[in-house]
Amino acid sequence: MTRTIRLAVIGGDGIGPEVVAEALKVLRAAVGDEAAIETSEFALGAARYLATGDVLPDDELAAIAAHDAILLGAVGGTPGDPRLKDANIERGLLLKLRFSLDHYVNLRPTVLFPGVESPLKDPGAVDFVVVREGTEGPYVGNGGAIRVGTPAEVANEVSVNTAFGVERVVRYAFAKAAERRSRLTLVHKTNVLTFAGSLWKRTVDAVAAEFPGVAVDYLHVDAATIFLVTDPARFDVVVTDNLFGDILTDLAGAISGGIGLAASGNINPSGAFPSMFEPVHGSAPDIAGTGKADPTAAILSTALLLDHLGLPEAAGRITAAVTADLASRGAAARTTTEIGDAVRAALPALEPR
Amino acid sequence: MTRTIRLAVIGGDGIGPEVVAEALKVLRAAVGDEAAIETSEFALGAARYLATGDVLPDDELAAIAAHDAILLGAVGGTPGDPRLKDANIERGLLLKLRFSLDHYVNLRPTVLFPGVESPLKDPGAVDFVVVREGTEGPYVGNGGAIRVGTPAEVANEVSVNTAFGVERVVRYAFAKAAERRSRLTLVHKTNVLTFAGSLWKRTVDAVAAEFPGVAVDYLHVDAATIFLVTDPARFDVVVTDNLFGDILTDLAGAISGGIGLAASGNINPSGAFPSMFEPVHGSAPDIAGTGKADPTAAILSTALLLDHLGLPEAAGRITAAVTADLASRGAAARTTTEIGDAVRAALPALEPR
Ligand SMILES: CC(C)[C@H](C(=O)O)[C@@H](O)C(=O)O
Ligand SMILES: CC(C)[C@H](C(=O)O)[C@@H](O)C(=O)O
Repeated sequence: MTRTIRLAVIGGDGIGPEVVAEALKVLRAAVGDEAAIETSEFALGAARYLATGDVLPDDELAAIAAHDAILLGAVGGTPGDPRLKDANIERGLLLKLRFSLDHYVNLRPTVLFPGVESPLKDPGAVDFVVVREGTEGPYVGNGGAIRVGTPAEVANEVSVNTAFGVERVVRYAFAKAAERRSRLTLVHKTNVLTFAGSLWKRTVDAVAAEFPGVAVDYLHVDAATIFLVTDPARFDVVVTDNLFGDILTDLAGAISGGIGLAASGNINPSGAFPSMFEPVHGSAPDIAGTGKADPTAAILSTALLLDHLGLPEAAGRITAAVTADLASRGAAARTTTEIGDAVRAALPALEPR
Repeated sequence: MTRTIRLAVIGGDGIGPEVVAEALKVLRAAVGDEAAIETSEFALGAARYLATGDVLPDDELAAIAAHDAILLGAVGGTPGDPRLKDANIERGLLLKLRFSLDHYVNLRPTVLFPGVESPLKDPGAVDFVVVREGTEGPYVGNGGAIRVGTPAEVANEVSVNTAFGVERVVRYAFAKAAERRSRLTLVHKTNVLTFAGSLWKRTVDAVAAEFPGVAVDYLHVDAATIFLVTDPARFDVVVTDNLFGDILTDLAGAISGGIGLAASGNINPSGAFPSMFEPVHGSAPDIAGTGKADPTAAILSTALLLDHLGLPEAAGRITAAVTADLASRGAAARTTTEIGDAVRAALPALEPR
């Protein structure tokens, strides 16, 4: 019997639905008859908020949670739109999904594919993955302010870090490193954020004992940005907190050919909740509808999705097709649909079952 | 009558004293008889801690505070030295100085000098300055932990931001922009750190009204790292919080030829306390004593020092000498002293007074 994969699809705003359409096209073709893909669409994002005032109603969150995985395009309206002033779509929708569905691993691979230009003169062989913690740190929303709008205003933000939360993501990162080139770099700012830093450092030291084959090093976040532009090939697996991971992965995307190629997975490794896959880029309302959006990051995100769901061969076909497409890209601009079609056409043939 | 400048000199550890010696040599030559330079040395840093157990005794802090300015090399011992495990030299010395002396402006210019190689293929004309807040944010040391070492450990870090603290540094940044190319970029993460972000954003909007000639834009910190590698020439003045400023300025140093060229000033614009000038790089114990350290960042820091003390002509002579030296640098390696001598020799002639 064919396995059925139930996907919740959140196209979102701007270019989100456009890149998701191409990603689904490639995903279906890559899976072939290995599985049946059933999709349910959820109209969430800035457009929905403007239409109905809803950001993420509880019943929709529950419906999304009943799926096997989530594919998300991008959410967010036009920056500065006054009608969005009181809605924080990022916190209320994107972060709400990550936190509610306990996506404690935010997995962000960085590969400089053959044929792709880096802004760096000499990037070397860039192939690393950032394991960004997804449910703690300065992202918890534990802030507050007093005397707002007066000269005596104080605004605080609390970064919350727990042994529970740090250990599980560190363990995941070590396991990932053991499958790869066996090198793990902890990035933090232990000399300044001494309490959180100490917890991260002690946790990495403790888990390292269980992975004697993995070489471990440590970089302050500021130094890590230097290495990302002077020697990115030094990295294999980077494990870091939510905020540092956010910063490092945009930079990583930039040095490996642009955020238009950067895929990500928000993963709950336990399977208690569905994991969510999304391009790292945003909704880019300025180019929405022009066909200029590159769907490659969304397509690569579906490879992460298939890997997570235990379909590594289909995932490999997608990565192979994207690699071939990137290597043969000419200078001529292609539309979103043309890129999706080209990647689909580049999929290796399915073995007859 | 000749003006006397009393400098507190903290050479520090590793390459710190080596680069400071060259910086003082160039500083004295550049000032000529415009001012008499009196120095007092303070033996502080990891070496001092290992010898005496002191990090920054109150009487030494008071003595330092009685000077006109401070020149600091770099502090910090060998990473992982077990004898330093319980001393946090960075917090106890460097940050203690910045906080005690109310260095609320951490000024970090980034210039890609002619003849200097960037790791970027096409950096363009890089010439911007980061105005990093120096006395608030996640650097305040307002953290804590419970159940340390148990599976139930919680470690928090609080970022504290005040209208008082944000407004004064934002005002400084606008004034700086008005003297330069009249473009100011606020960098923060307002969509996630909503309380602190809102304070920064409202403050920039309010102060902008006083500087109608300055064009203002905003970038999330993650997006800012992308622009630093794809279009660094877009920046003029960047204003940001303590932690984001730390991260962005290491990256800025890297794309403009390396942290060995990056100067900084920890400035108290009111003059209530002496300001402190230091290279952005660390103590690099691995190359200490080898003559491999580049003193250029320390030398450029003395130009910031002279500017701050109202000696812009002498400051300009130093910048001109460094510019000439960098433009004529061959491929041959030079020692720390050779670079210092070459920069001194390149100083424009003093006008007879
Ligand atoms: C939109 C924003 C909240 C989000 C984040 O900061 O995590 C984004 O930058 C990302 O990296 O996925
Ligand atoms: C040494 C460290 C505390 C310091 C900082 O984080 O400010 C350094 O990185 C810097 O940028 O001057």
